Amino acid sequence: MRKNSSEPNFVDTAVNVRYAETDQMGIVYYANYLVWFEVGRVAWCRAHGFHYRDLEAEHGRMMVVAEASCRYKAPARYEDDILIRTAVGSATDKVIRFLYEVRNQRTGQLLASGESTHVVTDRDLRPARLPASIRKLFHP
Amino acid sequence: MRKNSSEPNFVDTAVNVRYAETDQMGIVYYANYLVWFEVGRVAWCRAHGFHYRDLEAEHGRMMVVAEASCRYKAPARYEDDILIRTAVGSATDKVIRFLYEVRNQRTGQLLASGESTHVVTDRDLRPARLPASIRKLFHP
Amino acid sequence: MRKNSSEPNFVDTAVNVRYAETDQMGIVYYANYLVWFEVGRVAWCRAHGFHYRDLEAEHGRMMVVAEASCRYKAPARYEDDILIRTAVGSATDKVIRFLYEVRNQRTGQLLASGESTHVVTDRDLRPARLPASIRKLFHP
Amino acid sequence: MRKNSSEPNFVDTAVNVRYAETDQMGIVYYANYLVWFEVGRVAWCRAHGFHYRDLEAEHGRMMVVAEASCRYKAPARYEDDILIRTAVGSATDKVIRFLYEVRNQRTGQLLASGESTHVVTDRDLRPARLPASIRKLFHP
Repeated sequence: MRKNSSEPNFVDTAVNVRYAETDQMGIVYYANYLVWFEVGRVAWCRAHGFHYRDLEAEHGRMMVVAEASCRYKAPARYEDDILIRTAVGSATDKVIRFLYEVRNQRTGQLLASGESTHVVTDRDLRPARLPASIRKLFHP
Repeated sequence: MRKNSSEPNFVDTAVNVRYAETDQMGIVYYANYLVWFEVGRVAWCRAHGFHYRDLEAEHGRMMVVAEASCRYKAPARYEDDILIRTAVGSATDKVIRFLYEVRNQRTGQLLASGESTHVVTDRDLRPARLPASIRKLFHP
Repeated sequence: MRKNSSEPNFVDTAVNVRYAETDQMGIVYYANYLVWFEVGRVAWCRAHGFHYRDLEAEHGRMMVVAEASCRYKAPARYEDDILIRTAVGSATDKVIRFLYEVRNQRTGQLLASGESTHVVTDRDLRPARLPASIRKLFHP
Repeated sequence: MRKNSSEPNFVDTAVNVRYAETDQMGIVYYANYLVWFEVGRVAWCRAHGFHYRDLEAEHGRMMVVAEASCRYKAPARYEDDILIRTAVGSATDKVIRFLYEVRNQRTGQLLASGESTHVVTDRDLRPARLPASIRKLFHP
């Protein structure tokens, strides 16, 4: 995981395509990109100094997905090294929008792009606000 | 699986939420809605007289996803009976767009809505056209 | 879901193979049989008059898996209708062992067999006992 | 990924628990350990000088799972760093048996152990033999 200095908003992390993630077309099944987006969000949080796990466990706050979308440009294949790039597109203390790029790590080819919108809730899934200590991390 | 006569475009099918589909929030993980959309597409094809499997095996045609999105309205929970409603929003012999509604089968509550766009390809993932016998099924 | 009268211990339920469940070998990925076993356990519980969901929600008891195994005899393929047969091999109020058969529903061919052992715990994953009302259902 | 010099047969690789891999018990869903075993096999192959991908693509050989089992000792939780240790228990040119340990990387605690048996097949899933160049890698 590293920050790309030319595009300061993006945090990069990598995964290697698992056999379980392919389908009989011989390419990665489309729903798995949303799993990779989540891997990207975790990397973004860590790069900004907190664990998403602690947001839930210590602060009782969850980021419940309200919307997600993905545009698929080129297939990912088994054992490919995949670069997941994650940025925050916009953030209030109630709603956060993440942006994603999925690239082939070796060639740099863009495989997919997407976004997801999350609402902050308490443990009972009622609307809530981010704790101030976390909120400021979304506005550096 | 049945057709709803008042909205002739929608084909309905049902799934029961699996434990594997939940996450530690106690609700269905967001990527799994895209798996349910695929269950809906299979049901749509069957209701219109063909098996998606045969499209691949007999006609050498695949419907590769180009775009997918989902708006999450309310959570689905373990063992809930889920209604997946699928319609074709638009179709040419090269590009097909499906629409989805995901509802709680007992209460009728809308849990999510979404859409996906697919391009027709041959087995090598190159753009192709639907066979005429299949194509007409998308334009009743 | 129905009970097979000639083998009273088995409860049958069916699934249709999802595209998401296949891998690039063109067959169902091996871990997904354990998901099907869980579908079988849910069916077994329902056929015996309770919902596994309620065991957790109302009684605060969970059946945590201690061991699982599967022997794969023949591949399952996309859109195959699959019969999952589930029986209780042994049960105390602390440990329950399920047995499974996975068959092609059309041909009857045995695709896989397996078993899983579960220990009863409370919500904090500490060893516990089944409530008496549930326990007796495992010993008809 | 590194080799542990004191136990030369084991190859180690690490994963971080994904939200998608948890279930509503708040722990990793049991079928996902078999996905991790596969991640371990890939790591084992790489550490021994070949890619499993090439075995399929270049040699037309697949390692089809015949049996898999897992004993679950302690739960893995979201964002835990997990060590997957993989060794070959036995190997002929037709049948290969892998052994696995799953540990919490930070504490070293054993979370699960397991094994899987694979038969070598050609692309049509008929029994076959490993190419000699690959076979020798299983007998160092």
